Amino acid sequence: MLKEELGKIKSLDKYYFEEARKRLDNLTKPPGSLGRLEEFAAQIVAITENTMPEMGKKVVFTFAGDHGVTKAGVSAYPSEVTPQMVFNFLAGGAGINVLARHARADVVVVDIGVNHDFADAKGLIHKKVVSGTKNMLEEPAMTRQEAEQCIEVGIELVREYKKKGYGFFGTGDMGIGNTTPSSAISAVITGEPVAHVTGYGTGITDEVFANKVSVIEQAIKKNSPDPADAIDVLAKVGGAEIGGIAGVCIGAAIERGPVIVDGMISTAGALIAYTLEPKCAEYMFAAHKSVEVGQSAMLEKMGLDPIVDLKMRLGEGTGAALGISLVEAGLKIYREMATFADAGVTGDKID
Amino acid sequence: MLKEELGKIKSLDKYYFEEARKRLDNLTKPPGSLGRLEEFAAQIVAITENTMPEMGKKVVFTFAGDHGVTKAGVSAYPSEVTPQMVFNFLAGGAGINVLARHARADVVVVDIGVNHDFADAKGLIHKKVVSGTKNMLEEPAMTRQEAEQCIEVGIELVREYKKKGYGFFGTGDMGIGNTTPSSAISAVITGEPVAHVTGYGTGITDEVFANKVSVIEQAIKKNSPDPADAIDVLAKVGGAEIGGIAGVCIGAAIERGPVIVDGMISTAGALIAYTLEPKCAEYMFAAHKSVEVGQSAMLEKMGLDPIVDLKMRLGEGTGAALGISLVEAGLKIYREMATFADAGVTGDKID
Repeated sequence: MLKEELGKIKSLDKYYFEEARKRLDNLTKPPGSLGRLEEFAAQIVAITENTMPEMGKKVVFTFAGDHGVTKAGVSAYPSEVTPQMVFNFLAGGAGINVLARHARADVVVVDIGVNHDFADAKGLIHKKVVSGTKNMLEEPAMTRQEAEQCIEVGIELVREYKKKGYGFFGTGDMGIGNTTPSSAISAVITGEPVAHVTGYGTGITDEVFANKVSVIEQAIKKNSPDPADAIDVLAKVGGAEIGGIAGVCIGAAIERGPVIVDGMISTAGALIAYTLEPKCAEYMFAAHKSVEVGQSAMLEKMGLDPIVDLKMRLGEGTGAALGISLVEAGLKIYREMATFADAGVTGDKID
Repeated sequence: MLKEELGKIKSLDKYYFEEARKRLDNLTKPPGSLGRLEEFAAQIVAITENTMPEMGKKVVFTFAGDHGVTKAGVSAYPSEVTPQMVFNFLAGGAGINVLARHARADVVVVDIGVNHDFADAKGLIHKKVVSGTKNMLEEPAMTRQEAEQCIEVGIELVREYKKKGYGFFGTGDMGIGNTTPSSAISAVITGEPVAHVTGYGTGITDEVFANKVSVIEQAIKKNSPDPADAIDVLAKVGGAEIGGIAGVCIGAAIERGPVIVDGMISTAGALIAYTLEPKCAEYMFAAHKSVEVGQSAMLEKMGLDPIVDLKMRLGEGTGAALGISLVEAGLKIYREMATFADAGVTGDKID
């Protein structure tokens, strides 16, 4: 079923980039002078195959999951913080809520793998695939089937929200311990040494950091994930929320909607999608350069250049929310600026 | 009179940074994990001396002026584009209009030195000090008195808009040829060679670029501005809109309001303000890293780190408009996020 979905993804058509460039060069500004804002607009034209695209409603999917590997002491915070933060999201008090409101985007919180019974918690999307992953030091984090199921949750959410009028999709995560599987994915797929792609997460000590690197190295050795088989990597050393994010990236490419990828954890999800189908990257925007060092190698592999670098390392989709607003700024430039002819401005250069 | 104004500017008080930090560290996120967004909030707390500051209304002042030096063939576009673009601003069709609307900021267009009679053009702020500057290759661009008058226009505008409920000030410029005086200011005050701080402006050829460098070198030689006397620099090799921008930076520091400085031309204005009173920089945010190479040395001299780098080089205040939204995001984080206690989230780290 996943294979069939991946088969629907097409490369972007150059024609639309050229059409977008024609309009951009007729707007009352020197050609190219709005830099990346112009590129954002052209990419959306090509993604939507519409020479006058609308932004549509904007949504950040924040996937929450727990991690068995926290038992190995890899995080600064206890696992109980994952469900606590889910309730904080639902109450509107977290960073992602504030920044999504600022960007006029909605936040959709998805329980895809939290080790907590949320019963019928209001506003939460109940898509639990696992109650926390297994400890990857001892066994695969998930089964292959569970990993695929997580991806399918993400694809289906995009499909559902597209039908509801959403045109722009952001990714986010919550899960104590989840920089550990993200670094593991980064190391396995990019081939970088674990120590190069492992960071300080929510703020661990040097001692915990050394342990974290060792835990990731051991987990990779124990499970030997196949770098060419993204599902195998996601299952063995990944996490449920990372699978959901991968699904959103795939779903966006299938449904021809732009997707904006948050920081370290989301980039690991995007890399799973990219490894399954490299064309997925054409539909992506990388929101920000994270403080987490493991993100860079993944972005480089996918050919993505982060939009901002604000020294952030919170996750949740907070970078995606900021990025949504900047990409939207580019689209508004494209849609709303006057042309030279309309405004009676001399567009011919002297030289 | 200007000396008296400058005497009112005070350094920011450490106490407010500490108070801001206390609140930021109690919000439901790892300390410091929102990076520069947190710093933006703390700076606004210190600028306003208010531990729960409001953003207030936001405005971008876009100053327009013409430049006698365009006669020497330094720009890709003819001077007639300056008034044409002023009308485009007033009609709401320019880049700054689109991006200010997106940031929910107002645009105030000020004729401070355009070589065109706007009569009673609706919506324009009429503060003409000169009808274009003189050609600095032959004589000083302005008199010392005109230069001071431009700065006073900027100071008065901030005062007036503060009274109208505006709490956040952005700077912008329009003036064909104005990267030339901006590079001249950068060279004179930072001491960098002209060729290191001169760029391609709106998009000139290599031939025009070589001429531009030579023109700036000759103008500096001809007028020998005193690097320690910012009014002398502004008068001899500057421009009216650059003076207005310097005034906004000074006015913001006097009125204790944050000011967000756009790209190359605005940074030259900010540098004039900084040279008159270095404390001005404490009230500034540098919106973006411009493609114009001459900006970096000026930012470095003032100790400012640009917020984004989106390969932009349009001016008008377009970078400032994007920056306003990002700084506001930081302030909203500070004001709106739940604390650990409020949200019932475990804030104690394991380690």
